[in-house]
Amino acid sequence: MPVALIVLAAGKGTRMNSDLPKVLHRIAHAPMLWHALRTGQALEPVASVVVAGHGAAEVEASAKDFDDTVQVVVQQEQLGTAHAVAQAFPALDDFDGDAIVLYGDTPFVTEETLAAMAEARARHDVVVLGFEAADPGRYGRLVTEGDALREIVEYKDATEAQRAITLCNSGVIAADKATLEALIAEVGNANASGEYYLTDIVGLARAKGLSATVVRCAETETLGVNSRADLAAAEAAFQAKARAEALETGITLAAPETVHFAWDTVIGRDSEIEQNVVFGPGVTVESGARIRAFSHLEGCHVSRGAIVGPYARLRPGAELAEDVHVGNFVEVKNAVLHEGVKANHLTYIGDAEIGEKTNIGAGTITCNYDGVFKHRTVIGKNAFIGSDTMLVAPVTIGDGAMTGSGSTITQDVPPGALALERAQMVVKDGFAAKLFSMLKAKKAKQQK
Amino acid sequence: MPVALIVLAAGKGTRMNSDLPKVLHRIAHAPMLWHALRTGQALEPVASVVVAGHGAAEVEASAKDFDDTVQVVVQQEQLGTAHAVAQAFPALDDFDGDAIVLYGDTPFVTEETLAAMAEARARHDVVVLGFEAADPGRYGRLVTEGDALREIVEYKDATEAQRAITLCNSGVIAADKATLEALIAEVGNANASGEYYLTDIVGLARAKGLSATVVRCAETETLGVNSRADLAAAEAAFQAKARAEALETGITLAAPETVHFAWDTVIGRDSEIEQNVVFGPGVTVESGARIRAFSHLEGCHVSRGAIVGPYARLRPGAELAEDVHVGNFVEVKNAVLHEGVKANHLTYIGDAEIGEKTNIGAGTITCNYDGVFKHRTVIGKNAFIGSDTMLVAPVTIGDGAMTGSGSTITQDVPPGALALERAQMVVKDGFAAKLFSMLKAKKAKQQK
Amino acid sequence: MPVALIVLAAGKGTRMNSDLPKVLHRIAHAPMLWHALRTGQALEPVASVVVAGHGAAEVEASAKDFDDTVQVVVQQEQLGTAHAVAQAFPALDDFDGDAIVLYGDTPFVTEETLAAMAEARARHDVVVLGFEAADPGRYGRLVTEGDALREIVEYKDATEAQRAITLCNSGVIAADKATLEALIAEVGNANASGEYYLTDIVGLARAKGLSATVVRCAETETLGVNSRADLAAAEAAFQAKARAEALETGITLAAPETVHFAWDTVIGRDSEIEQNVVFGPGVTVESGARIRAFSHLEGCHVSRGAIVGPYARLRPGAELAEDVHVGNFVEVKNAVLHEGVKANHLTYIGDAEIGEKTNIGAGTITCNYDGVFKHRTVIGKNAFIGSDTMLVAPVTIGDGAMTGSGSTITQDVPPGALALERAQMVVKDGFAAKLFSMLKAKKAKQQK
Repeated sequence: MPVALIVLAAGKGTRMNSDLPKVLHRIAHAPMLWHALRTGQALEPVASVVVAGHGAAEVEASAKDFDDTVQVVVQQEQLGTAHAVAQAFPALDDFDGDAIVLYGDTPFVTEETLAAMAEARARHDVVVLGFEAADPGRYGRLVTEGDALREIVEYKDATEAQRAITLCNSGVIAADKATLEALIAEVGNANASGEYYLTDIVGLARAKGLSATVVRCAETETLGVNSRADLAAAEAAFQAKARAEALETGITLAAPETVHFAWDTVIGRDSEIEQNVVFGPGVTVESGARIRAFSHLEGCHVSRGAIVGPYARLRPGAELAEDVHVGNFVEVKNAVLHEGVKANHLTYIGDAEIGEKTNIGAGTITCNYDGVFKHRTVIGKNAFIGSDTMLVAPVTIGDGAMTGSGSTITQDVPPGALALERAQMVVKDGFAAKLFSMLKAKKAKQQK
Repeated sequence: MPVALIVLAAGKGTRMNSDLPKVLHRIAHAPMLWHALRTGQALEPVASVVVAGHGAAEVEASAKDFDDTVQVVVQQEQLGTAHAVAQAFPALDDFDGDAIVLYGDTPFVTEETLAAMAEARARHDVVVLGFEAADPGRYGRLVTEGDALREIVEYKDATEAQRAITLCNSGVIAADKATLEALIAEVGNANASGEYYLTDIVGLARAKGLSATVVRCAETETLGVNSRADLAAAEAAFQAKARAEALETGITLAAPETVHFAWDTVIGRDSEIEQNVVFGPGVTVESGARIRAFSHLEGCHVSRGAIVGPYARLRPGAELAEDVHVGNFVEVKNAVLHEGVKANHLTYIGDAEIGEKTNIGAGTITCNYDGVFKHRTVIGKNAFIGSDTMLVAPVTIGDGAMTGSGSTITQDVPPGALALERAQMVVKDGFAAKLFSMLKAKKAKQQK
Repeated sequence: MPVALIVLAAGKGTRMNSDLPKVLHRIAHAPMLWHALRTGQALEPVASVVVAGHGAAEVEASAKDFDDTVQVVVQQEQLGTAHAVAQAFPALDDFDGDAIVLYGDTPFVTEETLAAMAEARARHDVVVLGFEAADPGRYGRLVTEGDALREIVEYKDATEAQRAITLCNSGVIAADKATLEALIAEVGNANASGEYYLTDIVGLARAKGLSATVVRCAETETLGVNSRADLAAAEAAFQAKARAEALETGITLAAPETVHFAWDTVIGRDSEIEQNVVFGPGVTVESGARIRAFSHLEGCHVSRGAIVGPYARLRPGAELAEDVHVGNFVEVKNAVLHEGVKANHLTYIGDAEIGEKTNIGAGTITCNYDGVFKHRTVIGKNAFIGSDTMLVAPVTIGDGAMTGSGSTITQDVPPGALALERAQMVVKDGFAAKLFSMLKAKKAKQQK
């Protein structure tokens, strides 16, 4: 059965106290909206429609950034969840199949849960995702009868007996699109808030003789984010799960609680992650690599046997081959470091390619920017770049070449050659002694 | 009603196991004493007297450092709280009004609570701050009768019935100064410890027909610090509160539990603080700034749109205007960076002013110290400082000027000029190949 | 009574999901095996035997690394704990005295507990370490009668009444070696697993009229590690204890939960450790030193009054004398910094000795590696190394000497001399302005 996602993302999120639309606030470096879209993709939807409202332009840009086939429609007025879903139908005009309604501020529904809903759809017309709430509070209650869902009752409309029900409504709903559209067309707004509630479709479905049921998930999956405190809690929940999974996978975490994963971090077995490591988006680390303390990685690849840090910063486009060492206070950006390259101290490598087994001395800098353009540095294999070498790009250093410490290299260096930019060293005997005497005398005079 | 603060800060704090007087141990970068003084200042006191004892000279210096109008008196012998308060009266000879007794090791009493005490003083002669203790243990008990406080009973003197009382004494007391002085004069030391207890004044007041009452606060406010474990718990409590308030204010904290605020940190809405950021004292960050992971800020100002870090260190006197970028392994001290300045890699900027939109290349250092004196570097706007430029201060670089990579700049550079300090680059063909062969042969020989 | 340790370390640790043998996984930077061996050393054993199995070669190397007098024997097949212990006896042929059986994956048994077992051995033939389990689950139960231990019953063989017992078996056992050997010789494997259980010796001992007893310890001491989640919990438990002890000792920890100690870290009273500090193995910090935020220390010594960090990395062999300052983005390896040396910014010091009160300018690098050999830098006292000085080792800088900023120093500098390697500075008027115009025009053209 083909599936279409409808992701509701129109809310303002007043309690976030932010100019950023709520669904664009991030968990583990990805907007909440992306978490919902990613989970939905497990159903291999043929269409995905995001219903935006507040900050619609920003929401659209972010959704397209995730996947440019996602369609974004705008709900001009926020008239309730049924109204929001209705905005999606024109975009799904040609679509025939199941629609599933997700929420941009509910990032933790799992793929397994959606699969269970899809599976339940084979036997029921409407499938609602519910959860047993530890504290049901003001959640809508799911009134069931055996396998069947009879009704969703809003808390404020519930009887005492219904309030005693602990099975609550997550809002996530799946149904045949045409059915959903027909049911929503009948939803009215004759209630206290004057809103069109999606929840009403269950009662309407039953009245038409359609069947409805509940799929249950853990309460943690339905965690919604309404404030920054909620967001912090969601981040913490994400990290706790990611850390536990990393341990399960066979990754060595010296202090799991100090490691921050991104939503898409991939790390191999028996790699080692020390204390205080931050993974930004787009990082893969192979088995047997070691990420030392205080390292920060984004958009990079670290191969088997490589050692990164402590205090290394790998930026997007950093590709570290096997056994590469990138050490302390070293930044690598948009650069390929081939097997066995070592850059251990105080170095900036940007827009570069470095051949295997080359040693980059402390304090080396690829001078890749001339104030307007960026240029590229290419270094061969088995080269030895002396400490404090300035590589003024574009520049090429040949295999097995060497640069002298403190040299500014402005021309290409052939293989096997030594390049040097250095003045004659001069020693002025007694000069330092005289200078210090003079300075100290001056200071003594000033202090009088 | 004019108010005078009396802050008791004479205790040794034996359990701290430290040479530092207890009240000078810090929470969120401020001595505990400062927390008490700051809260007290909400009452706009006309006089503040700190009663020091152990480490009195250090305590006095710290108190003056907080506010040099604070008076410090010394309690030579520690003969009890009433005796301690009595030491403050000579310093308040000319003062007529309310005295409120606070404690240098009880940093969390809130301004709201003191305001409530001041308000209660309008109706009662003596106002005592109490709290409902979850575990009353050996705290003094407050014996009340309706609104009235009848007595403060020390635990060891309490009857079983009194021990069942959960309303406990915080020690904080407010009364008219003359009244307080008169009552304290009557306090005796005929008790097991031979000490003069401030708590006795409640009974003495009642005996004179004066009225006493209790203002209640949360137990967390009266948290006293007696050991380093207590101090750690107090620090954790401070941080938890500061983080929650930051979220409430609309600040984005990627991982709140990893951000450490100082007592006086001020951050604007919709600014973003990443993981593992430490704020020292004296930091303000405007709305919409971004502080990236592993940054350390003290005594600095960061404007809207600025990006700091990761791994940036801003020291006292760093002023970052709008849209300034200070990147990884960059230190800024006593320097003004005007709008749009970028210093993204491995740089030290100290004692400097940098004009708008100037780009500071990687590895740049302001050589501000000659071994005796510190000197200043001034760089104009739209300048381009090449990588690894040494700016030997005092030195001025004009607007739109440029320095060549690897240059040591010892003279002023006019606007629009290029300054270069560089020898001829020399390439010795085959030299590196020969050198490596030689070195490897030597090593092979040694290893035999 | 002479004591021999037998440490069982043959298990595969399947649930660790690792190629590394389980007992070599580390807690606080030391393999779990070392924790067990270190605790055992409190008994001053005359012999220590590790029974290895899976990854025996690696386990042997690690054990020898801890103490090369440790003997390692290999249990070829894992046939049960009694069988494992039996493998140790040949190595103890000449030994006469007590044997105590410890476990390589149970790192937290305390020295006090082992001392209590040794003491109990004076009165009983067999001493078993037990603990009151909060949740006894499937632990073996200790069936006692007054002071006497009657039997150890495996959970699966236990009656309902026995399962109600909460006193559980840790597996740690002490007995006269000859007795232990004799008892183990009688253990059979006629049980469901077909294994030889060490626990059986209690019943066998009683049958021979020997006495057995239980020494009780806290459940936390018997924490065994079977998965990486267990390992993470063990690490957390270690750190919590180390932090509490540090506070007790009188160390100032600004945020204890962010400080990670190694198993052998030694820190003096009234030293101060800021946020996010990682101690690797082999660190000693004297009283009154200050370790600032984001510092990483391994194998180094920091003296009284020294200030390290923020963002300092001290590697093995770094020796900081009194009042040394090592500042941000500074790495020190195998180097002695004498009293009052300052190296505050962006510096690499490796294989060096630096005399007292010498100032190392920002960006200084000891160029200690020529691609094959490492060389040494020696700097005298009261010297002034200018910013961005490259010290090409081997090289010696005399007392009170000075190097000019940006100089590459390739020859020794005499005391009191100034050494300079610098070309003539050239200023090309208007050149930067022309260059930028040209580059911007080019860019504008490209963008068309």
